[in-house]
Amino acid sequence: MALLLDQQFAPMPDNNEIATKTFLESVSHLPPFFDCLGSKVFAPIKADINGNITKIKAVYDSDPVKYETLQQILLIEKSIYGSEWPKVGATLALMWLKRGLRFIQILLQSLADGERDEDNPNLIRINITKAYDQALKRYHGWIVQKVFKAALFAAPCRSDFLKALTKDQEVAEEDCLEKIHQFLINFTATVDAIYEMYSIMNAELDYLV
Amino acid sequence: MALLLDQQFAPMPDNNEIATKTFLESVSHLPPFFDCLGSKVFAPIKADINGNITKIKAVYDSDPVKYETLQQILLIEKSIYGSEWPKVGATLALMWLKRGLRFIQILLQSLADGERDEDNPNLIRINITKAYDQALKRYHGWIVQKVFKAALFAAPCRSDFLKALTKDQEVAEEDCLEKIHQFLINFTATVDAIYEMYSIMNAELDYLV
Ligand SMILES: CCCCCCCCCCCCC/C=C/[C@@H](O)[C@H](CO[C@@H]1O[C@H](CO)[C@H](O)[C@H](OS(=O)(=O)O)[C@H]1O)NC(=O)CCCCCCCCCCC
Ligand SMILES: CCCCCCCCCCCCC/C=C/[C@@H](O)[C@H](CO[C@@H]1O[C@H](CO)[C@H](O)[C@H](OS(=O)(=O)O)[C@H]1O)NC(=O)CCCCCCCCCCC
Repeated sequence: MALLLDQQFAPMPDNNEIATKTFLESVSHLPPFFDCLGSKVFAPIKADINGNITKIKAVYDSDPVKYETLQQILLIEKSIYGSEWPKVGATLALMWLKRGLRFIQILLQSLADGERDEDNPNLIRINITKAYDQALKRYHGWIVQKVFKAALFAAPCRSDFLKALTKDQEVAEEDCLEKIHQFLINFTATVDAIYEMYSIMNAELDYLV
Repeated sequence: MALLLDQQFAPMPDNNEIATKTFLESVSHLPPFFDCLGSKVFAPIKADINGNITKIKAVYDSDPVKYETLQQILLIEKSIYGSEWPKVGATLALMWLKRGLRFIQILLQSLADGERDEDNPNLIRINITKAYDQALKRYHGWIVQKVFKAALFAAPCRSDFLKALTKDQEVAEEDCLEKIHQFLINFTATVDAIYEMYSIMNAELDYLV
């Protein structure tokens, strides 16, 4: 169960502020998630998410005290960039990163909840499609949506995906699903807090790629 | 006409040996070609080609004398890697890079030759599809082929593409096509020579991605 436990997110503190350093440490374990999907087709997605993380980390590293929390990053970048903001800097990188995180969260939640296509119980297309529809589709133009539909056929079957999540250790399916549930507690709270921050700061954009 | 002229390839010498350094310099101007296509959908292709170039450059830089020509790279890597070769090192990177180069070559040739879809004279899908079918399709599994078909819709129209190739300078279409013809002379000779080298060295593979 290495993979998921290694990347256990920190619990949300009472003030809802997310420490940038801890957050970056936790999300850095996520890109390998796309290797679990088992096809090189997902490499561009992994690269996009890695790019987001690198961009946020560069801003943080430029002044770890000033950028101690994700909230501070948005506030400071808003004052630096003026009307260019929020389509700029770490604010833009985190805007997209959170959508990838939401995608992963909904996918794992749907699997842990046992949602299945009864006609194809060993496929996870239904779970991936749910995650895509809720987290990403509205930000994608029709061509990228078409690319998604094609890439969906590269998704692994359910049993291989669960096995990959546990890094090939022999773990019973129920144990794996239970571990996912456990992982999702702090992860979901963190993603929710980031979405709330974008909403409060009026930093969300809905342009299409 | 900056873009194409800037990256004019060197003429092939009589012994058909390609100098690594000159070759790397010339191909480094090609990835921006994919920006000409005008959509972020092509970013993963650009990244793949950039990756190939970086890998070959790293091998060259490790010993510029030893790896002076592309032929030497293949010969030396063959002796270093044994049975792993040719699916390894700069040999693998150049194997894929040459397919991207062939794609570009066939696309430009088809445009310069005036091949058109009479029903859609301002689209270049027919030219792109020809280049894809001849240079890449046989190395792609059905999922990547489906992704290609979807991505094709992101291709620019003919006039925008020609304009982009000339970097927005005002150039008459015939002049642009003439410049492409001129560019293709050394470029095609170089790509042909690389293909011949892979054939002679028995270094070509046909596994699918
Ligand atoms: C041979 C033929 C080949 C043809 C090639 C076709 C290639 C098709 C292209 C595929 C697209 C790959 C996914 C990447 C999409 C990206 O375009 C978007 C926006 O990306 C953002 O853009 C911003 C500027 O607008 C900044 O640059 C951000 O960068 S910044 O850091 O610089 O600020 C960047 O993340 N990210 C996204 O949509 C996020 C994607 C997350 C994905 C989550 C999982 C989905 C899983 C799907 C499973 C089935
Ligand atoms: C939100 C949902 C998003 C879903 C995401 C879906 C993304 C779809 C994936 C798109 C694929 C992008 C193209 C890259 C394909 C690559 O897989 C292949 C093989 O790539 C090679 O693989 C080797 C190992 O086998 C080494 O790693 C090589 O690397 S090494 O240097 O390490 O040795 C590497 O180049 N290259 C290729 O097929 C070459 C492609 C050249 C393309 C030329 C132009 C085509 C133009 C098309 C115009 C319409």
